[in-house]
Amino acid sequence: MSFHNIIRTEILEMAAYQAESADVAVKLDANENPYSFSDGLMKELLSELAEVRLNRYPDPEAKELKDAIARQTGVSQPQILLGNGSDEILQALMLTFWSVKAKMIIPVPTFGMYGIIGKLVGYDILEVSLDDNFDLCTEEMISLAEREGVKLIFLASPNNPTGNCFSEGRIIDLLENTGSVIVVDEAYAAFSDQNFLPKLKKYKNLVVLRTLSKIGLAGLRVGMMFAAPDLVYEVNKARLPYKVNSLSQKAARFILEHDGEMKVQIEKIKSGRRWLMEKMSEIRGVHVYPSDANIILFRVSSAGERLFRSIVEDGILIRNLCRPGRLYNCFRVSVGTEEENRMFIDSLRFRMQV
Amino acid sequence: MSFHNIIRTEILEMAAYQAESADVAVKLDANENPYSFSDGLMKELLSELAEVRLNRYPDPEAKELKDAIARQTGVSQPQILLGNGSDEILQALMLTFWSVKAKMIIPVPTFGMYGIIGKLVGYDILEVSLDDNFDLCTEEMISLAEREGVKLIFLASPNNPTGNCFSEGRIIDLLENTGSVIVVDEAYAAFSDQNFLPKLKKYKNLVVLRTLSKIGLAGLRVGMMFAAPDLVYEVNKARLPYKVNSLSQKAARFILEHDGEMKVQIEKIKSGRRWLMEKMSEIRGVHVYPSDANIILFRVSSAGERLFRSIVEDGILIRNLCRPGRLYNCFRVSVGTEEENRMFIDSLRFRMQV
Repeated sequence: MSFHNIIRTEILEMAAYQAESADVAVKLDANENPYSFSDGLMKELLSELAEVRLNRYPDPEAKELKDAIARQTGVSQPQILLGNGSDEILQALMLTFWSVKAKMIIPVPTFGMYGIIGKLVGYDILEVSLDDNFDLCTEEMISLAEREGVKLIFLASPNNPTGNCFSEGRIIDLLENTGSVIVVDEAYAAFSDQNFLPKLKKYKNLVVLRTLSKIGLAGLRVGMMFAAPDLVYEVNKARLPYKVNSLSQKAARFILEHDGEMKVQIEKIKSGRRWLMEKMSEIRGVHVYPSDANIILFRVSSAGERLFRSIVEDGILIRNLCRPGRLYNCFRVSVGTEEENRMFIDSLRFRMQV
Repeated sequence: MSFHNIIRTEILEMAAYQAESADVAVKLDANENPYSFSDGLMKELLSELAEVRLNRYPDPEAKELKDAIARQTGVSQPQILLGNGSDEILQALMLTFWSVKAKMIIPVPTFGMYGIIGKLVGYDILEVSLDDNFDLCTEEMISLAEREGVKLIFLASPNNPTGNCFSEGRIIDLLENTGSVIVVDEAYAAFSDQNFLPKLKKYKNLVVLRTLSKIGLAGLRVGMMFAAPDLVYEVNKARLPYKVNSLSQKAARFILEHDGEMKVQIEKIKSGRRWLMEKMSEIRGVHVYPSDANIILFRVSSAGERLFRSIVEDGILIRNLCRPGRLYNCFRVSVGTEEENRMFIDSLRFRMQV
């Protein structure tokens, strides 16, 4: 017996996930915080990890970590749900609202995992293009949501890969004028001035996502969901128990309670962003888009694919978005260390002249 | 706007997951390895963890860990898939074979998560009772699988909570006479003599699951799936990227490559099981079932609920299975350390006399 006659068609048709990888010195493709913590802080962190009892299951409720998150955000524990990365929370949210032929709206372009996980869970994905400023077309979204009985709308703000926040007023429009749950994914919140957490009180159909991945702890896989307690209660049923392992719970809590270095790193990334945008704008043939994140979207006037290969030859990996369409000849670069940023600017400047 | 009118009915009807918890000294309810590693081994482990770059995403393929697993099991890398615990692999498997009204078979009683995750993903769960020896009723399962076009059959062998392996011949019967994918969950393999890994070559519809949770690393959340490379390739598409965090990858690889202490612990657990079963059998009113795992199922002649509360009063938590039906007045106890086992026997002996 084989399995091919009973496997799901959508899976067979799907391309296998391929992490982009190239043997490069400078990785500016994955939106990570490029800085490590000091040896002193790491030493303290490791002595915390020494206390973890590896033979015991993790605390399924991750109470100590939630405590640290509650203190940092001012949100109460019953409004918090944690996952093995935001991906797992996205999946739990989608399972919570699933039905046969359930529909979700995503703006395009946006973070690819909404569509990938949505398809996996069994949703019809309705795409609505962003406007010329990469902002939301709310009228179209509201009428589509009503017409199609849309369950979920996913909004990454700041958006990936475009880097900008959607206007607060437009997001509120969706919260007030649809019957959908609006998921505002603030993965890049640390680098922007937007913050939907205070709006949780008013909007019971609002879900805010955050993550530790962009601010220095991508290796831990800790995603956070914030919503009304009764919504958290329901999504909690659609999750797997023991999602966040014991080492990550301990390490994340320690860093959140000793976040001085992380805060300094975030400020460095924000000034790196300013420097990069200024230098990139000065290069002829490069158009830079506004950014509220640790990523910068830019478009080159021609020959994007060749430029990409040249930059990789210089030992720098950025994200290639050069498919025909809206992002034709576009790239996304993550803000690196000062040295990495300089290397990238030197490479881009040189390669654009050739 | 609220969310109650669009939430999935099955979720609303579901009870929230509650980890059993009691303030007890001795935890014999969660099937963990009760032993910790030596200070020396933990020190080496921590110096490995010091090398982890927390700010970078984990290796999505977990190549180094897969390497260690391949060496230990003799299975090749393309036959291995890892997950954030077996739970996540179960979910990915179910998503891979899902269709509207898809069906799965589980024997009962068995591990609760098959049914819970199956319902979440959207399967109809068909239950087939085990026979009087807690072995599989294969004739009934084969005809049901054919009649209902069953996609997946989940077999925990050794089974939880009954503790026994299903007969190898009966599992092979299902592999040869159904069109279903047969998932043999060997979570407790370390404590038994059964091993379906060598059968992967012959049966393309066989999936074997293993975990590090029962052998000393429950805190890490590392589950393993073994199957034909083309089946692994497809399930890989239904998983989330970056499933296993960097700290767990590193720690698991280190322990698998330094598994001397773990092997000694497993032997201690096996002799603890023999001792426990002998002592329990000597207590009047206690019936002990055979076990190939680090768990022992037993039935008491009367007043199970009262007995449970008394044992908790003695500072010992076991798993209470006393629902009316097949497991009426039954309990599951995990094998603990020598001292914990003695405390449990003393408590059980005393409380059964009262």
